[in-house]
Amino acid sequence: MNPKPNIVDLPVYKPGKPIEEVKKELGLSEVIKLASNENPYGAAPSAKAAIIAELDNLYLYPDGSAAELTATLAKHLGVTDERIIFGCGSDEIIALIARAFFLPGDETIMADQTFSVYKSNADIEGAVSIEVPLKNGTHDLDGMLAKITERTKIVWICNPNNPTGTIVPEEALISFLDAVPAGVMVVLDEAYFEYVTDLSYADGIKLIDTYPNLVVLRTFSKIYGLAALRIGYGVASPQIISLINQVREPFNTTRLAQVAAVAALSDQEYVQQCRALNSAGIVQLQAEFKRMGLESFPAHGNFIMVDVRKPASEVFDALLRQGLIVRTGFHCYPTYLRVTVGSAEQNTAFINALELALQEQEIRA
Amino acid sequence: MNPKPNIVDLPVYKPGKPIEEVKKELGLSEVIKLASNENPYGAAPSAKAAIIAELDNLYLYPDGSAAELTATLAKHLGVTDERIIFGCGSDEIIALIARAFFLPGDETIMADQTFSVYKSNADIEGAVSIEVPLKNGTHDLDGMLAKITERTKIVWICNPNNPTGTIVPEEALISFLDAVPAGVMVVLDEAYFEYVTDLSYADGIKLIDTYPNLVVLRTFSKIYGLAALRIGYGVASPQIISLINQVREPFNTTRLAQVAAVAALSDQEYVQQCRALNSAGIVQLQAEFKRMGLESFPAHGNFIMVDVRKPASEVFDALLRQGLIVRTGFHCYPTYLRVTVGSAEQNTAFINALELALQEQEIRA
Repeated sequence: MNPKPNIVDLPVYKPGKPIEEVKKELGLSEVIKLASNENPYGAAPSAKAAIIAELDNLYLYPDGSAAELTATLAKHLGVTDERIIFGCGSDEIIALIARAFFLPGDETIMADQTFSVYKSNADIEGAVSIEVPLKNGTHDLDGMLAKITERTKIVWICNPNNPTGTIVPEEALISFLDAVPAGVMVVLDEAYFEYVTDLSYADGIKLIDTYPNLVVLRTFSKIYGLAALRIGYGVASPQIISLINQVREPFNTTRLAQVAAVAALSDQEYVQQCRALNSAGIVQLQAEFKRMGLESFPAHGNFIMVDVRKPASEVFDALLRQGLIVRTGFHCYPTYLRVTVGSAEQNTAFINALELALQEQEIRA
Repeated sequence: MNPKPNIVDLPVYKPGKPIEEVKKELGLSEVIKLASNENPYGAAPSAKAAIIAELDNLYLYPDGSAAELTATLAKHLGVTDERIIFGCGSDEIIALIARAFFLPGDETIMADQTFSVYKSNADIEGAVSIEVPLKNGTHDLDGMLAKITERTKIVWICNPNNPTGTIVPEEALISFLDAVPAGVMVVLDEAYFEYVTDLSYADGIKLIDTYPNLVVLRTFSKIYGLAALRIGYGVASPQIISLINQVREPFNTTRLAQVAAVAALSDQEYVQQCRALNSAGIVQLQAEFKRMGLESFPAHGNFIMVDVRKPASEVFDALLRQGLIVRTGFHCYPTYLRVTVGSAEQNTAFINALELALQEQEIRA
């Protein structure tokens, strides 16, 4: 009953604290969670209606091939059906790629720091993670390129990067893709794609025809407001999709996630509204940070990394006592908080709480 | 971009044909699917109500630890919380066990034939599957025991067995567990546990204290009628659960699955009703098979394997043309159909269609 030796000491993923837990622990009646980059405006009403219409089918297995959702998404993206694979969040696509492609001793390159799930899945498969420090919070594509060897199997680019929120511009991305050997897979994680308004940002899916080694990841958990339902996807060449499918469990997404995603995709007006509100929220928060003399990274997703110039864990605790949950614990950024862009009211509540928290730290210091 | 060599030629899992697909292909207005061992009476009403009550939280990630569901289930089963792990169906628990425990070259023992997901996951990890033929459609526990070597990591027992529907009695199971070396994990798949009425059947969860190498799998996809939501679980020692958790993605079950499962668990009266109706359905179908002179295996789940004494794929096609979907393609049983026990009306429709199909085959022969 010995497990794989490499899984025993893996660090456990620490999600944002649940609202109910914080309420109970601290005896608070109201708690605002800006910790998990969830859409503060919720799911599109059409997604809820689609779920209600499906409730008499709970006893039936989902369509394992998610045929209707695949066709709807393929049309929306302008790709063919066989270029798409769905997962229990794009997290699962990461796990499936790792499970299908990594052999022990393979090397894989990622930023330091970035979304932790790339490394944890490499660890499980016994692949060696080569972590390349960010430069000014942004992927160092040249630095990553320089680390490619004959053992490199996959390079991960998170764009916008989680947790810093920065992007690599299209020009730099294309130069990078041109330089990566054809036998090395590039996984471009675009979980926050729909939030980006910067004109220099690339649409990865437009690049998959040119780069058959490219896999693009996206999700319904962010702007589509369906994090509860766990549905994300990968887009790549039919050959790669077919190989990833080899390790996918037959029924890995739920019937309700499939119908809700179809409905959410059809309501692009709602997506536009959420994007506009998010952009306004970034402007609001950045103005407040400037007023407070705090620096933050350029924010392209629905979250901002801000330097509070104190041990972030202490500021986190001071915010928590006021009922504000944010995110810390980023080993490269011990004085930074990552805060999700909330509604205007939530952002104001966060700024007020942050001011109090920082004053509290001043007094203690 | 070379994948793991062992995943390239894996056979693709063939699920039951979807109702909508059959309607379209054959121009039928009514189709009855008795192919995937789904509960014909659907989910408990309380599960639907719980989903509706959760619809405003679609934008929030699920509780990754499924704390409320874990506590509810732990109480129902009479075990402590740390002995439970949830997955996207019990399928995912099988995949997680394989991913956490198998090293290339490990051996794993299973029946031939049984649920195909054990072998497919062993294949992905490069473990060697030792398949031990069933005896009269029942696990040959002595034969499996005889195959245990120093390389054996896991033995899989599907009880009731899918596809044959047979059980191993408690006494034989305990003798087997007593004889298995402590370092070999035994996975007891009890997906159909709640349907079994035979007094000789073991409750695997009552055995986990005595056998720390035992993992029991169960699911909400069968009698609880929640197949659409993908939620199953494993019960074992805290040590094993903790190791499986090391390879679990943080948010592997949905918020709606969690609330629906809590509600479904609380309605045990509904479960009793479904079990009683299923038992009556088995009696109904077996009486018809007897009348028709067809032999079937003793059925303990919500499905029956019946020998139609013709190539099963031809009878399958003849049934399909009448709008009846069942299951065939079992390599050890080329003349058997597996039919899910439906409602009394569905069972009658199946028997009528089967009589026609068999007459058709006679005429052709």
